[in-house]
Amino acid sequence: MEKNKITEIFIVTTGGTIEKVYDEIEGTLENRQTVIKNKISSKLRLPYTHFSVQSILNKDSLYMDDNDRALIVQSLKELLKKNYPIVILHGTDTMALSAEVCFNEIKNVSVPVVFTGAMTPMGFEDSDATQNVTEAILAAKLLAPGFYISFHNQIFKVPNVRKNKDKRTFEEV
Amino acid sequence: MEKNKITEIFIVTTGGTIEKVYDEIEGTLENRQTVIKNKISSKLRLPYTHFSVQSILNKDSLYMDDNDRALIVQSLKELLKKNYPIVILHGTDTMALSAEVCFNEIKNVSVPVVFTGAMTPMGFEDSDATQNVTEAILAAKLLAPGFYISFHNQIFKVPNVRKNKDKRTFEEV
Amino acid sequence: MEKNKITEIFIVTTGGTIEKVYDEIEGTLENRQTVIKNKISSKLRLPYTHFSVQSILNKDSLYMDDNDRALIVQSLKELLKKNYPIVILHGTDTMALSAEVCFNEIKNVSVPVVFTGAMTPMGFEDSDATQNVTEAILAAKLLAPGFYISFHNQIFKVPNVRKNKDKRTFEEV
Amino acid sequence: MEKNKITEIFIVTTGGTIEKVYDEIEGTLENRQTVIKNKISSKLRLPYTHFSVQSILNKDSLYMDDNDRALIVQSLKELLKKNYPIVILHGTDTMALSAEVCFNEIKNVSVPVVFTGAMTPMGFEDSDATQNVTEAILAAKLLAPGFYISFHNQIFKVPNVRKNKDKRTFEEV
Repeated sequence: MEKNKITEIFIVTTGGTIEKVYDEIEGTLENRQTVIKNKISSKLRLPYTHFSVQSILNKDSLYMDDNDRALIVQSLKELLKKNYPIVILHGTDTMALSAEVCFNEIKNVSVPVVFTGAMTPMGFEDSDATQNVTEAILAAKLLAPGFYISFHNQIFKVPNVRKNKDKRTFEEV
Repeated sequence: MEKNKITEIFIVTTGGTIEKVYDEIEGTLENRQTVIKNKISSKLRLPYTHFSVQSILNKDSLYMDDNDRALIVQSLKELLKKNYPIVILHGTDTMALSAEVCFNEIKNVSVPVVFTGAMTPMGFEDSDATQNVTEAILAAKLLAPGFYISFHNQIFKVPNVRKNKDKRTFEEV
Repeated sequence: MEKNKITEIFIVTTGGTIEKVYDEIEGTLENRQTVIKNKISSKLRLPYTHFSVQSILNKDSLYMDDNDRALIVQSLKELLKKNYPIVILHGTDTMALSAEVCFNEIKNVSVPVVFTGAMTPMGFEDSDATQNVTEAILAAKLLAPGFYISFHNQIFKVPNVRKNKDKRTFEEV
Repeated sequence: MEKNKITEIFIVTTGGTIEKVYDEIEGTLENRQTVIKNKISSKLRLPYTHFSVQSILNKDSLYMDDNDRALIVQSLKELLKKNYPIVILHGTDTMALSAEVCFNEIKNVSVPVVFTGAMTPMGFEDSDATQNVTEAILAAKLLAPGFYISFHNQIFKVPNVRKNKDKRTFEEV
């Protein structure tokens, strides 16, 4: 067996709080462009992980509709042909719904597909984004094939998971 | 003369980017409440400065009107009776206008009145808020009586100063 | 099965870079006291993890000797009776050696025992400590019973792992 | 008069806590090389300040001797010919002594010469370095010609200033 193997991971971005960027000209927080690759590289040390980032949507998940979810399913099916573990960055408000749609439409996977996101955008001093991303990448290496949400150092099997807005985290249903 | 004297400063808050707080429940950046006292105390070392914070408004400065500016003038007149230097935290979009209204309505002051704010809210990793606040406090100790905007390590005499949106800073007119 | 169960974890501290604190009076970086519990709680969101911290040593691992390692083995044997997953914070210079001694002396465990540490102390802006700690806690929940080093999003099975000083990380032998 | 003039400033570095860098290979904090120019540019917004950095020493100020101070005096005399305000980064332990030597040897200056430093190195999360640097630069623009120590938002006239180790700041004598 090869030693010190580099793990290949796909990181799929769809927008959501985790990717929101503060625009100094407009004074707003927006999902503008995917800056996630540079941010992950500068905030985390991943000498044994090679990741490619694929941006398929750039939306607050509150405004995602059936077409958006069909696009996520379609993109996942395409990426799954490579058999690399997948981490999907997604807004928290409808993450559980999107994960369930993917689970129902795709069902059998040969790798882990791990959804994560953040309560506070990467770039805030007290953001949970970096924590969630590094945990999701590790989970994508360790878990059995299947659909998961990884959030705040906890792994939830899809379906039967939901956001708990008051507790500001996810929970099993 | 007394050695190692503590300087008394008034910090007047009116809202604006500098005080915006990320609300995890709503997913928005808002001017909710004045958290500035705790943040300044935790981010800056001010062993020779005693400051009291007075919150008179909590608005994005784009939405300030004549009544709001009359309130700022009125509050300043009241505070000026104490003869302590004053730092005013204000949104950048109409900071120059508010400073000019105060200058025209009050004219003669016996202490420096220093406006400042931020392009990016305190609490973002790349915020200019802490820098602007510590510079404005120092300027309030060193400058002659009068009205000023202190921003990005530069002191502007009021009037004849404006925000330059493209350069993301202020400039002399 | 119980939903949203809290996982109990033991965090054992032995000193090392990860716990070094800057002493402003002396101007030195030292292993003074275990501040790790407060730091972990303030930097990570762990709503489903209950951890207790047990400090057994407070040493730069370069200066650990056989007696120190016997103490680690003895402490682990005691803690293992509880059957909670264990994360051990340890200096990187001799982490692989201590982990191997524990593996040889204890051999069979009913939970994962995960060693981790940091190249740069927690509290530096570019520290890898927070990343390593959150990954080690997640690994302690997901891995099969056994001895591991978790570092920079990679899991190494003990023995056959060493520090690579030039690459500033660990590697399989 | 020229509008929006750029101020030219000399920043002279001598080592000290403010410039200490963590060496991951050796696990030590050292005065290795002057990284101050990049750090200042990345941490502060200085659109109206042009600064050049001149590194004349790279020492913990506890170990500075008469020769080192003679070198500082000589370097200052040379730089003062340009008539740009000067900020000197210096270890806190003997900053007051070095400032007094410069004051006694040079006496008359046509610009402010402002010493500053830090209790905790730049790069630590709770460092006072960035605050002290931005305040010293502003002080160098606003003060009358003379020798000063600027520290923790307070300006001290040289001589008659000393470090108070217990209070972790400077004070008037």
